[in-house]
Amino acid sequence: MITTRPDPTTIAALTRDLQARFGNRAVTSEAVRRQHAHTLTWLENQPPDIVVFAEDAAEVAEIVRLSAARRVPVIPFGTGSSLEGHVNAPYGGVSIDLSALKRIIAVHPEDLDCVVEPGVTRKELNDHLKSHGLFFPIDPGADASLGGMVATRASGTNAVRYGTMKDNVLALEAVLASGETIRTAQRAKKTSAGYDLTRLFVGSEGTLGIVTRITLKLSGLPEAISAGVCPFPDIRAAADATIMTIQTGLPVARIELLDEVQVRACNAHAKLALPETPLLFVEFHGTEAGVAEQAARFGEIAAECGGGPFEWATRPEERTRLWQARHDAYWAAVALRPGTRGISTDVCVPISRLAECIEATKADIVETGLIAPIVGHVGDGNFHCLPLIDTANPEEIRKAEGFIGRLVARALAMEGTCTGEHGIGQGKMKYLDAELGAGALEAMRVIKRGLDPEGILNPGKIVTLRP
Amino acid sequence: MITTRPDPTTIAALTRDLQARFGNRAVTSEAVRRQHAHTLTWLENQPPDIVVFAEDAAEVAEIVRLSAARRVPVIPFGTGSSLEGHVNAPYGGVSIDLSALKRIIAVHPEDLDCVVEPGVTRKELNDHLKSHGLFFPIDPGADASLGGMVATRASGTNAVRYGTMKDNVLALEAVLASGETIRTAQRAKKTSAGYDLTRLFVGSEGTLGIVTRITLKLSGLPEAISAGVCPFPDIRAAADATIMTIQTGLPVARIELLDEVQVRACNAHAKLALPETPLLFVEFHGTEAGVAEQAARFGEIAAECGGGPFEWATRPEERTRLWQARHDAYWAAVALRPGTRGISTDVCVPISRLAECIEATKADIVETGLIAPIVGHVGDGNFHCLPLIDTANPEEIRKAEGFIGRLVARALAMEGTCTGEHGIGQGKMKYLDAELGAGALEAMRVIKRGLDPEGILNPGKIVTLRP
Repeated sequence: MITTRPDPTTIAALTRDLQARFGNRAVTSEAVRRQHAHTLTWLENQPPDIVVFAEDAAEVAEIVRLSAARRVPVIPFGTGSSLEGHVNAPYGGVSIDLSALKRIIAVHPEDLDCVVEPGVTRKELNDHLKSHGLFFPIDPGADASLGGMVATRASGTNAVRYGTMKDNVLALEAVLASGETIRTAQRAKKTSAGYDLTRLFVGSEGTLGIVTRITLKLSGLPEAISAGVCPFPDIRAAADATIMTIQTGLPVARIELLDEVQVRACNAHAKLALPETPLLFVEFHGTEAGVAEQAARFGEIAAECGGGPFEWATRPEERTRLWQARHDAYWAAVALRPGTRGISTDVCVPISRLAECIEATKADIVETGLIAPIVGHVGDGNFHCLPLIDTANPEEIRKAEGFIGRLVARALAMEGTCTGEHGIGQGKMKYLDAELGAGALEAMRVIKRGLDPEGILNPGKIVTLRP
Repeated sequence: MITTRPDPTTIAALTRDLQARFGNRAVTSEAVRRQHAHTLTWLENQPPDIVVFAEDAAEVAEIVRLSAARRVPVIPFGTGSSLEGHVNAPYGGVSIDLSALKRIIAVHPEDLDCVVEPGVTRKELNDHLKSHGLFFPIDPGADASLGGMVATRASGTNAVRYGTMKDNVLALEAVLASGETIRTAQRAKKTSAGYDLTRLFVGSEGTLGIVTRITLKLSGLPEAISAGVCPFPDIRAAADATIMTIQTGLPVARIELLDEVQVRACNAHAKLALPETPLLFVEFHGTEAGVAEQAARFGEIAAECGGGPFEWATRPEERTRLWQARHDAYWAAVALRPGTRGISTDVCVPISRLAECIEATKADIVETGLIAPIVGHVGDGNFHCLPLIDTANPEEIRKAEGFIGRLVARALAMEGTCTGEHGIGQGKMKYLDAELGAGALEAMRVIKRGLDPEGILNPGKIVTLRP
């Protein structure tokens, strides 16, 4: 089980093997290595020893076999947009860059599915699907690679309606630690054929296998989309309206909360004139008549909860501008305190506890003396609180770490999770035991040890293993 | 690893332990033992050595610990409605009857979830939920226990709209082979916290742990329901209408195919006068305006595909009568050939291949000389072909086995699965390798060996293990 760096002669020998086989696609320059261990946190950049740019699944298997033969770690890399140090290489090793695995192998419009390689990004896929009248709904904000989205069990703004990656992956092909390739399922829409290897690999962060092919569920592009913004006097009123929306079965496609701090940031950054109170951005998908009916109902619910008026963005440009503002929330937030980095948290709680969780968190923000705007996929009880931190200042990091620890403890006490969609990576390993208990963690370790006995697949993520 | 029966002295000793602890809830009478190894197939009844009627989760853990200490198999039992010999005891051992674990521990209407024990049946849960305006949508036909539905990854008529058990279980508590209890997740609607143990246990058929508590997603009772029946000239036209319905995003709640043989059976059994051609039974859930719009659209689609007229069951009694006929399809079918048993198959293929798969299967039925009505959850590409077999006649069994083998091979060649919703159990183990390949099977074995090193949990199901 790998728990230290392989010795330099092993790395040198493997580097020779890889360079002999892959030529100038096996890169050891520091810039490339550091770029492949890129994190968006204060976690230390831990570069791999070598980066190999793979071009197809067979090459991935070959790289894994060569590395396994010398017991050297392999770390899959997509676009580097993960948030918890997933691509870091604490024990060095080989970063396998999958971004050139970009084939869209098949689109089956009648079956509403497609088969893609892991380096395809979600925007690339959606551009390709447009002519079929289809789209892939999972939208984590960043133009992440689909392989990375599988790895972190990503979700985002559309999850309230379309689910997360676990709900939208039909089958995977993955290279195991042995270099052998398995297929987790056929292409049928449902199956009861044995253990759900598909779901086991979704969210496994490259620690059980490296995904080389993905069969995804697709959705038809909605005939009509309507979107709008609704102000609320406080977080609780916005949460109440969200609960009532979900509870009455209104099939809302997106329902996003911005707190007043985030709204101020968006107004400044995107030159908008939104009311600087808690807001819900909502979107409905359906038929013309359907979305009109849904919108009217939502307006009534908002009013009943003390919010409103609900303003429709009737023109598509207006809608795009709103959602662009929502998507740029991170950059708008960081502009509130230039020179800092926003540390993205993503606790998720049962929706009945959401208002309480956000209110207590906002009180903590004030008490801790942080600037930390909040945006949330509130239909799922998931929110991002983004402390803006000068990561060069250890005192600020210490303060933020304390704050995030309390935020997680608060969410867990409300039967929530430390991570709704970003994953555990390195950054959240310390919370997993409190969340699930020693027994569940040991079950995860047993699975990891069984499928990767030497521990070469993305070591130092999710669970720690003893040597 | 258990691959033979424990010796009689071991069983006698364990029986004494269990009777000392559980008194007359530890039963060794042949009738009770045989009833707990009940199968609905031609598989041999393989009774356990003893049945223990557990009353709570702590007792389940205790029974597992006592059995594990003597390396004796344990087999969980709910209502005995599974279809592939899941509750059979090929190596003897202890059947743990969970039917008394019937507490509905919590209902959280704001979060649309509930927490139940595994012995609660789906109808019991739905009776309880009615007053909250909620329901649990998964409907496999039988009034199965929710624990059993978790175990087989059940689905049924509503799955096209509401998904399967994998989509509707938020968290599980399970007793492992060691007797230790783990919790797989918190109650948040989504999470990226480590490996998806919840989904790994859903569909694991009691071979990885015994589920003692289930957190389920719920849905709001629809404001309006509309249902109807639509005849088609042939299977292909009905399949085309189904594909177009799904593809255009009509949120159909149920879309069930009955072939002309099954329709004849239902007419005779339920005294209906349905047109004896392939039929689609459809149901829509939504607002009054929504279901009316959906119904109108479906009528147009059916006409476009050469079907119709689409007859609405406007009165609730009429709707109930239709769905009752659909639910009683098994009994209606068996009445076509009294004294036989219907052997339920459940292949599932990509919907684009459905018509082809059913047509080839119907040709095979004729050629083989079987009576085998077909009903299908066609929105998911899943259908049940029910050969009516005299299970006392080995020649008939041989014929049916050949037929089912060809049916499965046909589905696999179309990228489908041997089982859409019934599970592998004993009956379909022989197909799993052809479906997923040796690598995936070995991954399943690794997981099984890791979590249950002695192999005491429901041995002889899903995968075979070497001693």
